[in-house]
Amino acid sequence: MMGSDEQAIREVHSTWIDAVNAGDLAYLLASITDDVVLLNPGGEPLGREGFIGKFSGAHEDLKIHCTSEMEEVVVVGEVAYTRSRDTVTVTPRAGGETARHAGYRLTVYRKQPDGRWLLARDAHTLVPVEG
Amino acid sequence: MMGSDEQAIREVHSTWIDAVNAGDLAYLLASITDDVVLLNPGGEPLGREGFIGKFSGAHEDLKIHCTSEMEEVVVVGEVAYTRSRDTVTVTPRAGGETARHAGYRLTVYRKQPDGRWLLARDAHTLVPVEG
Repeated sequence: MMGSDEQAIREVHSTWIDAVNAGDLAYLLASITDDVVLLNPGGEPLGREGFIGKFSGAHEDLKIHCTSEMEEVVVVGEVAYTRSRDTVTVTPRAGGETARHAGYRLTVYRKQPDGRWLLARDAHTLVPVEG
Repeated sequence: MMGSDEQAIREVHSTWIDAVNAGDLAYLLASITDDVVLLNPGGEPLGREGFIGKFSGAHEDLKIHCTSEMEEVVVVGEVAYTRSRDTVTVTPRAGGETARHAGYRLTVYRKQPDGRWLLARDAHTLVPVEG
């Protein structure tokens, strides 16, 4: 039987992907910790401010569509870590070729005093792929 | 003051890097959980068997030198997560150019019943860099 914490984290994860696709920055900012750190291949780690800038800039220039299949959720007390298999396709709004990226994500969530689970750390391994 | 768990994890981390550089597979296998999963840009996730194959093959073909600077250790009960800034240089044993990779790692450790901390999950973002 799936625990309620695991269920909550799966919901945060799927809603996160919907919010990325919708460009819903307000939701995303409400879903991450103040000290969030996001790691990505070839770039510097992003904190909260860096994420705002990168996400806003990307949505301004690109149509973005993510998919993410959760492969694992491990809850240990107030911490959880998850692994997902992700794709992102990006198409310039000005027109042009669609690029596709694929890879995996390792994410750490922290349970808050009010019971919510927030994304605290994330590292993705997505790289450009064909097709 | 640094807690003893944090100190233990920092020691596992620095000894891990030494063991990678020394090609000490036995030490590495004693430092990871049975269900370990390692994520890397452009590749499939590695479990224990996959890691053995990849590490052995790499050391056969390449001289490998890693550095890793720990940037953060967060211990929450029986789980810890860390972020490090890493470089790897690889030089073909048969001769040839040295390639350099740089990036970051997000690692999850699990405390065992005997008090040891083992590496359970890891995602790195290392990509080729100049120089």
